[in-house]
Amino acid sequence: MPTATHLTRLRQILTPSEILTDNELIAPFCTDQRNRYLGQVFAVLQPHTVSSVQNILRYCQQQHIPVTPQGGNTGLCGGATPHASIAGKGIILSLSKLNRVRQLNLADNTITVEAGMILADVQAAARDANRYFPLSLASEGSCQIGGNIACNAGGLNVVRYGTMRDLVLGLEYVLADGELVSHLYPLHKNTSGYEMYQQIIGSEGTLAIITAATLKLFAPPQSVLTAWVGVENIHAATSLLSALKNHFAERLSSYELISQAALSLSASYSQLREPTSANWHILLELSDSLPAQDLTDPLISVLEQGNWLNTVVAQSENERQHLWTLRENISAAQHNLGASIKHDIVVPIEHVAEFVENCQQQLASTFPQTKTILFGHLGDGSLHYNVFIADIQSNDVYHYEDSINQLIYEQVLSHHGSIAAEHGIGQLKNQWLPRVRSSAEIKWMWAQKQYLDPQGILNPGKVLPPQA
Amino acid sequence: MPTATHLTRLRQILTPSEILTDNELIAPFCTDQRNRYLGQVFAVLQPHTVSSVQNILRYCQQQHIPVTPQGGNTGLCGGATPHASIAGKGIILSLSKLNRVRQLNLADNTITVEAGMILADVQAAARDANRYFPLSLASEGSCQIGGNIACNAGGLNVVRYGTMRDLVLGLEYVLADGELVSHLYPLHKNTSGYEMYQQIIGSEGTLAIITAATLKLFAPPQSVLTAWVGVENIHAATSLLSALKNHFAERLSSYELISQAALSLSASYSQLREPTSANWHILLELSDSLPAQDLTDPLISVLEQGNWLNTVVAQSENERQHLWTLRENISAAQHNLGASIKHDIVVPIEHVAEFVENCQQQLASTFPQTKTILFGHLGDGSLHYNVFIADIQSNDVYHYEDSINQLIYEQVLSHHGSIAAEHGIGQLKNQWLPRVRSSAEIKWMWAQKQYLDPQGILNPGKVLPPQA
Repeated sequence: MPTATHLTRLRQILTPSEILTDNELIAPFCTDQRNRYLGQVFAVLQPHTVSSVQNILRYCQQQHIPVTPQGGNTGLCGGATPHASIAGKGIILSLSKLNRVRQLNLADNTITVEAGMILADVQAAARDANRYFPLSLASEGSCQIGGNIACNAGGLNVVRYGTMRDLVLGLEYVLADGELVSHLYPLHKNTSGYEMYQQIIGSEGTLAIITAATLKLFAPPQSVLTAWVGVENIHAATSLLSALKNHFAERLSSYELISQAALSLSASYSQLREPTSANWHILLELSDSLPAQDLTDPLISVLEQGNWLNTVVAQSENERQHLWTLRENISAAQHNLGASIKHDIVVPIEHVAEFVENCQQQLASTFPQTKTILFGHLGDGSLHYNVFIADIQSNDVYHYEDSINQLIYEQVLSHHGSIAAEHGIGQLKNQWLPRVRSSAEIKWMWAQKQYLDPQGILNPGKVLPPQA
Repeated sequence: MPTATHLTRLRQILTPSEILTDNELIAPFCTDQRNRYLGQVFAVLQPHTVSSVQNILRYCQQQHIPVTPQGGNTGLCGGATPHASIAGKGIILSLSKLNRVRQLNLADNTITVEAGMILADVQAAARDANRYFPLSLASEGSCQIGGNIACNAGGLNVVRYGTMRDLVLGLEYVLADGELVSHLYPLHKNTSGYEMYQQIIGSEGTLAIITAATLKLFAPPQSVLTAWVGVENIHAATSLLSALKNHFAERLSSYELISQAALSLSASYSQLREPTSANWHILLELSDSLPAQDLTDPLISVLEQGNWLNTVVAQSENERQHLWTLRENISAAQHNLGASIKHDIVVPIEHVAEFVENCQQQLASTFPQTKTILFGHLGDGSLHYNVFIADIQSNDVYHYEDSINQLIYEQVLSHHGSIAAEHGIGQLKNQWLPRVRSSAEIKWMWAQKQYLDPQGILNPGKVLPPQA
């Protein structure tokens, strides 16, 4: 059936403002923020109600129209960009207009929000209620909570609060056939059969479309201490982490590793001085729900015990912002170096030091023209390992992608890590999935996919590797 | 094929000590701790290695032999007792002999243990390493970690540390066809395709046999404050909970509700005095990883603000034990009242007061001969709501089960709660599952079951309701 006929039919079941077809309007939806992927669709649909989502899926399943769901379009693995194999045949389903708070429940410390709500708005809604929603990441001003759930996002506070999966108590989602499944009750315990919504989390829109979620809230931090520690090597960084975790328990809310190369890049971009002079840097934060807690003395005492003395403790909110800006600007500062081959990886914390050493050695000998910007969430073992090629700023660096991925991922695997920590698989990494999941699991994933989406309309070409 | 032939074949693939057939030896495996269910099998198999588990499943799948997996056999829903429909045809697969610590990883704060390890032994192994494993429940001296995972157990510390699902980082399990799936790496973040092991957690042995798990460890509590608060009604108890959570955040590790009837029963059984005189009682615990923290003054200040003044704060380890003994002895003390109709339920915390009031009113008018012993984990909204019938101490009380369940569960459902909080579904509640899960979900559960266990050998008759 020609796309003009689909549009006529879609106009019968949706309001005019729910359908975008103008090329200029739909262009930003069709590429990712890195301009790494470019998709083609005949329309972007942005339903204003859950029942519109159901209508869209019913129609698309009937007509075998591929549906690429999209939240804030901030992903780094091409998960929200239509796959080349369906160019022009499908639609993008933008959840942006489903963006209300549905319910706030203070007794149970939960908030129920729609999928298209921007993460920073969820944080603000919690703050307004004297609560705290802890998920925090670089794109929080534009990414959407539905996308965060679909990718099981991580970010800066995982060491204390866990990933998105740990923050979800219930989901509402629409299946490929338009059926709505809803569990939005604020139950902190519930073991009633298999927990199907756990399959939806992290499935990147390939099994169902998330429309709302009930999320955990926490007590707001009242005392916060931010510190910067320079260390000679990653061993020192992981030892300090262990000492802090065992001393401060949940008070340790962030523990970020930053290489000297990443720091000097960001410091120069931010026009801020470097807090310490060292090979590696730690940005850490302790926070407490009780006001006026002295966290400095206990921190100094831990630092002294292990001789981690190259330290700056923020003495004011300004100084705190200085330290965080250095961390947060790394991504933006990298643009000056051009395109990079990114790796969002995780290895057991005990292996991080050896892993990084091995990668750096192998890169230096095999690709001496590379420069690495390394930073990440050492508190949970996840790293952003970005490789640049000297003198190539354009997307031509991707010619090196396969061989550099090979080098890095083989090291990840030999250290019992995983190729995707918090950015998901998308269309960037699905060919690597058989290296981290057994064939029994991948067959099981495909069985799940085929049961829930027999026509294969939901986000084709993503997450799963091609079937054998 | 006659069972004698099966035994001959099983003796060829297992060692003699892995096979029990003597009636006296197998009797304790065939009934649950309440003597509520009685199963019949031709053998109890207790594999000493994972490869024996694989051999057993391969043989049982080939021969269509029903397998009832069993941990410490402490469940309250008949999940570990062979179903009547397979009387005499199957085997019990006891995981008890797989009970080693496989690995302790201090840098990542994890421990990898085999499924048959007793929960208290896991706690002790953590303690020996100067770490803390928080799952704690009445049967911790005999229940096994594999069973805890299979049932997504809860217990006393969920308000701070979550349920078993929140404590698992990775699983090793054997599928019905004998294939081993293993993810025992200590990764705190990993989003690599659908997270299949999440389906195994809480599936009560109906999808796969758990053989080992990698679990999170935490900093050990160094300062602990235990207090008892008497309150007039449940509204006061939930208000206090909210104030404490928002003030102390994760420091609030237990928050238990106890009715006056439950307290006087336990106090008399324990020969201990009642700490407060009130309609309802709260046992709460605050704990901190820092030593010598003053938790008393901040607690008193919260209690004074809300006029919760009927309070006892434990001043010594003896006094602390006194308070905890009163809570822990409720279960044992109930035996003096005979058999009861138990309900392990959860409702949103904001609805607990109204829910209990409605149930008590309806019970009083419909079944005036009943007596209720109510206690539970108010910190997460879950309650143990046990109903006794005056003058009937024997299992004859179960004649009233259907109608009393009907009354309680309808109240649970009308308050958006669930019929199973932390004890699972087993064979006690599967007929109620369609009331808390939609038909789309139950079809999906069955699809999952049929994909993973096409012969239906794994724990038949449990969890899932009969197919429509």
